[in-house]
Amino acid sequence: MPSYFTSAPGKVILFGEHAVVYGKLATAGSLGLRSYALVQSRTDGALEVNLPDVQLVRSWKSADIPRQARWEGYPYPPPAMNVELLDQLTKFVDLGTQTNRSVAAIALLYLHSYLTSDDIANQGYDLSVRSDLPVGAGLGSSASYSVCLATALLKLNGHLSESLSAADQRDLVNQWAFQAEKVIHGNPSGIDNTVSTLGGAVIFKKGEKIEPLPGFQSLKFILTNTRVPRETQVLVANVRKLREKFPSVVNPMLDSINEISISCKQLFAQNGEDRAHLLSRFGDLVDVNHGMLAALGVSHPTLEKVREISSKLGLKSKLTGAGGGGCALTLVRDDMDEKTVEELKTKLGEQGFEVLEAQVGGPGAGFVTLDSVTSIAEFLSRGTADLETQTWTYFV
Amino acid sequence: MPSYFTSAPGKVILFGEHAVVYGKLATAGSLGLRSYALVQSRTDGALEVNLPDVQLVRSWKSADIPRQARWEGYPYPPPAMNVELLDQLTKFVDLGTQTNRSVAAIALLYLHSYLTSDDIANQGYDLSVRSDLPVGAGLGSSASYSVCLATALLKLNGHLSESLSAADQRDLVNQWAFQAEKVIHGNPSGIDNTVSTLGGAVIFKKGEKIEPLPGFQSLKFILTNTRVPRETQVLVANVRKLREKFPSVVNPMLDSINEISISCKQLFAQNGEDRAHLLSRFGDLVDVNHGMLAALGVSHPTLEKVREISSKLGLKSKLTGAGGGGCALTLVRDDMDEKTVEELKTKLGEQGFEVLEAQVGGPGAGFVTLDSVTSIAEFLSRGTADLETQTWTYFV
Repeated sequence: MPSYFTSAPGKVILFGEHAVVYGKLATAGSLGLRSYALVQSRTDGALEVNLPDVQLVRSWKSADIPRQARWEGYPYPPPAMNVELLDQLTKFVDLGTQTNRSVAAIALLYLHSYLTSDDIANQGYDLSVRSDLPVGAGLGSSASYSVCLATALLKLNGHLSESLSAADQRDLVNQWAFQAEKVIHGNPSGIDNTVSTLGGAVIFKKGEKIEPLPGFQSLKFILTNTRVPRETQVLVANVRKLREKFPSVVNPMLDSINEISISCKQLFAQNGEDRAHLLSRFGDLVDVNHGMLAALGVSHPTLEKVREISSKLGLKSKLTGAGGGGCALTLVRDDMDEKTVEELKTKLGEQGFEVLEAQVGGPGAGFVTLDSVTSIAEFLSRGTADLETQTWTYFV
Repeated sequence: MPSYFTSAPGKVILFGEHAVVYGKLATAGSLGLRSYALVQSRTDGALEVNLPDVQLVRSWKSADIPRQARWEGYPYPPPAMNVELLDQLTKFVDLGTQTNRSVAAIALLYLHSYLTSDDIANQGYDLSVRSDLPVGAGLGSSASYSVCLATALLKLNGHLSESLSAADQRDLVNQWAFQAEKVIHGNPSGIDNTVSTLGGAVIFKKGEKIEPLPGFQSLKFILTNTRVPRETQVLVANVRKLREKFPSVVNPMLDSINEISISCKQLFAQNGEDRAHLLSRFGDLVDVNHGMLAALGVSHPTLEKVREISSKLGLKSKLTGAGGGGCALTLVRDDMDEKTVEELKTKLGEQGFEVLEAQVGGPGAGFVTLDSVTSIAEFLSRGTADLETQTWTYFV
């Protein structure tokens, strides 16, 4: 009667958004707003799914769910995307094609098809996922969901046995989460699920291996959601147009942004000991990168407002993600008193922004093995802080 | 009984401030806020000086003024700075050493020493200078004064005869204005007096020849003086520190700023015909350069406020000069209706800023030969628009 909590963080881009499109380095970190899953086997052959964040509550007879070949297990990689299975599942869940709830359900059943043993499928299971992450804010909510899901189904079906190294377990989670991300996004970069699985921070370049950032230390940020909807494709296109107009001006800007990620990496590699110095330098990079993004035309009056408010309190902010709205990060140095932080949050809140405190660089995917049946309703209503006090195992 | 009005514009940096310190190209244009001089000979051997902008009214007996060797006239260059004469003049005017009024008076008498013929010195003359330019706002008020002064004394003493080409006359004015600038500033770059003499726009690099920007077309700007005092040396030092911390990040930023001046030059060389296209592209460069300056840490909340207000009205702004306060330029496209411009001026004025409308790229130094004695009081009280309706001769 296996039963688990699983959990995975969101992600933020720290440096290099937009420049990454042109093959430049970028840096991302795990965001301490997490998704949590409860998975536990049943006896009645039902697959009961609760995804309150996309308003999905479903119960299917396990025997009715389209399945194709099972995955052979470690060390085999996940098979290539199975388009036929995707079609079957899309028809089966019958929730349209492009909505969050539809792709969330299809991704779940896609992983179910490959990862669930016949025994577990015959018994059925509950799978519930809840998240602290706002959906569609560029904070990796879907990757966080995908990693939770992959961890839950891999654990439930015994694929993450203790005979595997932590690194191998982590790779399995990441690979299967990437499958779920492909179902959800079509052609994701793999950054979000990697950050969510590994935790900490990573440095990456389009089409190349994603590397953990050595020596990265957890940082505290205020995350401000301006609630202005992002139009990622429009912003990416605008930068492209500016680069076409003035290639000799824009190319060195992109080179400079590339060097920000390298400088960030060097900071953590070299200055790990002197935390105040590290935070001061990191703040410089935050300022410079934001200025460059503004120069590329992807800031927004609301983001400049965040900068203005935080700057008055001596704090450094930058947009994170595509810009043009969306979210901003404000670095909270260790020496900031609680009063200043509260003042910042109040002033940002007065602008109508959603304001969250979050660590960046905390742990990645984790699980808790439960020794008794847990009520789904109780799981869904429990506070995050309460869930966090469980004894989590991370793949490190 | 020769008698002249002379006039010379201020200057603004269009692109490349700060980067110019590191040997990068910068672009400056003449600013249609001007200084005006009235010079006319007397009969009583007095040199009567009225400089209302520095609260200086003085009358010296011409014979008392320390003089040394005269300049030999065209084609001789001005002699090297005469430190002994400077000392004598400093003692003679007895106004301290570092005040605006002291250096203005010393510069005047320094040029007097070299340029004034014995005949004119014996007769004496009036010299009055007034300016529309705010002093110490980075708008080249001293260069504008110096060029007015040089033109006035060269004209009064017959050094700008019509047998010289316009280019030679212009060079004489510029060289002697540069002498006055050296008296005032010690080690000026020569940019300000060159822009003020030539008018239009120039592209330049530290230590190299200052080139006129070919095909430059006059542009209309709103010039906003935030009234926040500039601390040029502090800002230059801050950029230096940032570059020392992150050379690999900052160096490509400076390269990019260098390319902005090149792109500006290409714009005017290639797109002179399509004015709307030109202004749109110029506006892009304004935006990018400001973002880069903000990334270098030399913006200021007041400057960001100018950007915010103008951006809401669809207009592009950048800081000009050292930043950290000082002035901002807002490009006014030809298609802007007067109502929008007025709204912009009102909103900027509500912030406590000084708001001026000004052409950039208009004519340089000029003079009017007067056929009757002009009252100094009348000259000093006349409106600028009224003075502008005179028939000016420029050195083109």
